[in-house]
Amino acid sequence: MALGRALGYVARRFSAAPAKEWLTEDFLNSLRAIVGAPNVSTATVIREQHGQDESMHRNCPPDAVAWPRSVEEVSLLAAMCYSRGVPVIPFGTGTGLEGGVTAVQGGVCVNLTKMDQISELNPEDFTVAVEAGVTRKALNKYLRDSGLWFPVDPGADASLCGMVATAASGTNAVRYGTMRQNVLNLQVVLPDGRVLHTAGQSRRPRKSAAGYHLTGLFVGSEGTLGFITQATLRLHGIPEATVAAICAFPNIQAAVDSTVQVLQAGLPIARIEFLDEVMMGACNRYSGLSYAELPTLSLNCPLGLAIVQSNGGSDFAWAREPEARGRLWAARHNAWYAALALRPGKKGYSTDVCVPLSRLPEVLLETKKDLLDSNLTGPLVGHVGDGNFHCLLILDPEDAEEKERVAEFAKRLARRALAVSGTCTGEHGIGLGKRQLLREEVGEVALSTMRQIKMALDPKNLMNPGKVL
Amino acid sequence: MALGRALGYVARRFSAAPAKEWLTEDFLNSLRAIVGAPNVSTATVIREQHGQDESMHRNCPPDAVAWPRSVEEVSLLAAMCYSRGVPVIPFGTGTGLEGGVTAVQGGVCVNLTKMDQISELNPEDFTVAVEAGVTRKALNKYLRDSGLWFPVDPGADASLCGMVATAASGTNAVRYGTMRQNVLNLQVVLPDGRVLHTAGQSRRPRKSAAGYHLTGLFVGSEGTLGFITQATLRLHGIPEATVAAICAFPNIQAAVDSTVQVLQAGLPIARIEFLDEVMMGACNRYSGLSYAELPTLSLNCPLGLAIVQSNGGSDFAWAREPEARGRLWAARHNAWYAALALRPGKKGYSTDVCVPLSRLPEVLLETKKDLLDSNLTGPLVGHVGDGNFHCLLILDPEDAEEKERVAEFAKRLARRALAVSGTCTGEHGIGLGKRQLLREEVGEVALSTMRQIKMALDPKNLMNPGKVL
Repeated sequence: MALGRALGYVARRFSAAPAKEWLTEDFLNSLRAIVGAPNVSTATVIREQHGQDESMHRNCPPDAVAWPRSVEEVSLLAAMCYSRGVPVIPFGTGTGLEGGVTAVQGGVCVNLTKMDQISELNPEDFTVAVEAGVTRKALNKYLRDSGLWFPVDPGADASLCGMVATAASGTNAVRYGTMRQNVLNLQVVLPDGRVLHTAGQSRRPRKSAAGYHLTGLFVGSEGTLGFITQATLRLHGIPEATVAAICAFPNIQAAVDSTVQVLQAGLPIARIEFLDEVMMGACNRYSGLSYAELPTLSLNCPLGLAIVQSNGGSDFAWAREPEARGRLWAARHNAWYAALALRPGKKGYSTDVCVPLSRLPEVLLETKKDLLDSNLTGPLVGHVGDGNFHCLLILDPEDAEEKERVAEFAKRLARRALAVSGTCTGEHGIGLGKRQLLREEVGEVALSTMRQIKMALDPKNLMNPGKVL
Repeated sequence: MALGRALGYVARRFSAAPAKEWLTEDFLNSLRAIVGAPNVSTATVIREQHGQDESMHRNCPPDAVAWPRSVEEVSLLAAMCYSRGVPVIPFGTGTGLEGGVTAVQGGVCVNLTKMDQISELNPEDFTVAVEAGVTRKALNKYLRDSGLWFPVDPGADASLCGMVATAASGTNAVRYGTMRQNVLNLQVVLPDGRVLHTAGQSRRPRKSAAGYHLTGLFVGSEGTLGFITQATLRLHGIPEATVAAICAFPNIQAAVDSTVQVLQAGLPIARIEFLDEVMMGACNRYSGLSYAELPTLSLNCPLGLAIVQSNGGSDFAWAREPEARGRLWAARHNAWYAALALRPGKKGYSTDVCVPLSRLPEVLLETKKDLLDSNLTGPLVGHVGDGNFHCLLILDPEDAEEKERVAEFAKRLARRALAVSGTCTGEHGIGLGKRQLLREEVGEVALSTMRQIKMALDPKNLMNPGKVL
């Protein structure tokens, strides 16, 4: 029986702790009554699948997983758990990188992938509404014949509402902004089950000055303030075909100088990405390419090329054809897998600092030296137009000493970013592991203000407890 | 106690009766001790100057006006008023349009114009920090030789922190976004005097996913959550000179169709503004021009011209020369004064709805019919790329019947926008007069969520009470 298994599991994991009082057959029956019996599971394998994301954080399985099929079911489920004091954790594709879905206090994991409707496409208004389970690739496939697209592109094929929750961005943010700039309205199930429309039901003006910006508050809230069940997104016209170029530089400073000058010229740049010589080598091997293994910029901006050349940029690879452009960007988009292939069978951990552009060269150089000193493998790849870069550390998860070295390296890198007015996370979020860094980053007054907001909206601390704050 | 205050308030307003119990010589001496005696005034003329903005709301003077010179003084002043239960109202240039500065419960008006330092200009990082009193024109003058500018341009030469408080925008929002997209960090004095840095002290990465987005919460908070004493802003490269054009259309639908098609083409458009035939006539007379008096688009986007012509657009006036471009845009920027000149000696009131682009033609047409039916003068001018337009109503403030007709018209217009998924305010804010409309726009759950946030951050309801909520 499911309950027996669950209790047995709890007993195994926390042998000292008694089973949770709320975890009764009556509770599970209430869950089943709301979402349907086949949409509730307490199987160990299912719970463990929902106990972690793509990060290295320890797997903390929830006590049960539920798959609601509508906002009404999410609302009933939230209200029921609220009345019984049961923690709830929203779950999308599980592709987060900061442990945001781990059930550190147990509770019910609410898997939202069965809510996958796309509606209210208004091409003239550049808006569409997506339910919690719709991924970014599914949306762009749906939009294929409309002349429109949604440009925010983190590495994974994440759910769009999950991307809202973590304030995701990607390679197009320098032109189109992050999720913050591309969400017009959110449907949110509050911890007590009430349904909030952050900008008012069905509203979708391109801008508004009406009351507190609740939409902005929920973007980046990492599941700690409510369930994001639907997002009204801002779409964009697909731009005219642009020229893609890859250009190698004698050193990092020259690559960053070029970036600053391209941005200062006010050019309509779509993307400008940095890859260090280690990353270029990994991409060459992974994708069968033969680029120079030097600090490199990959950019979509024909007018920027003169600037790039004046900084000593050379070895251009050009691509006007869609197919060739696709190859260039595929190499960049496969960077994560190219990095993993450097040490087959190992796992990856990505850092995520973001610093003012003028401080980027020194931070990159110090980081490369630290990698060397720490004897770690970690190619660098960056959304350099935003000052955001990732060190893709490859490590053996069975090697406790190496894990510790990676953790220490990542903390030093975050503090290096904080020391130059930057942030410990440009686009992955705080999750479980960066809470101390958040405190250092924003200070006690900001942290206590965030806590006051959390207390006001989730007074029982049941929404994804243990994260962010 | 509260009753006593309320009765005192009623008594004072309607019979020149005794002042509030907190309004003692001791209190005023405490104020003087903080900001210096010359920086406190209780003179009637000064108080009345601070009792209203550019809107038609009744003048409600504060009991005293103070001019702090630093964030430390604002902090001490806030803490002192907080401990004594005295309402405080932040004041910038007083150019708001929704009665945001009226002292409906009396209290201390905190005029922030003596805090006018510009600092931390980092041209490579596209960032600058401005104190509360710096206006947008002062900043752009300061930036003149840097190759950078700050593009958000409401009609008035407002203070930038005031623009933060009202989530202002203007003609450049279609390309550069509103204030929401251009603020990286805020220094805020909380109601109890603590100093908050919304993104952490001195931080200025171009993007961040670190914790709740406090910056976004304070943008548009209209002085009800704290004093915005410094803003770190995002700057932009001055774009290459673009072509300005003015183009007349046979009807409104054709003008809006052109706008949608230009946006769908993904062109790097800087501005696209709509003026109706009444506004064009007013501009012609005011600025000595001779444009066709037809629905008109004024746009900065050379590639958009073919689209515009295919919709029946004609009668182009072109300007490649900076001087001629300036004339075109000056005519648009003087629209408010051109409208006032239609009825010399009268006052203006601006509506501010924003709707999805597809619904814009019907809303514009119904509004023009309503103007006619209501026998009101009200040229239309719009940031049409965002679906935001203003009806500049010209009225006799001494004519109570006309004022009432204007108020009823404005309410009907706001509800017309709400009926098509729009907002009652695109860029002016809620202030005093649109609180009922906010309720209709966002609904009870959103309103109660906003109230919870207000209660959490300002539990004594002393920050600009009576506004927004």
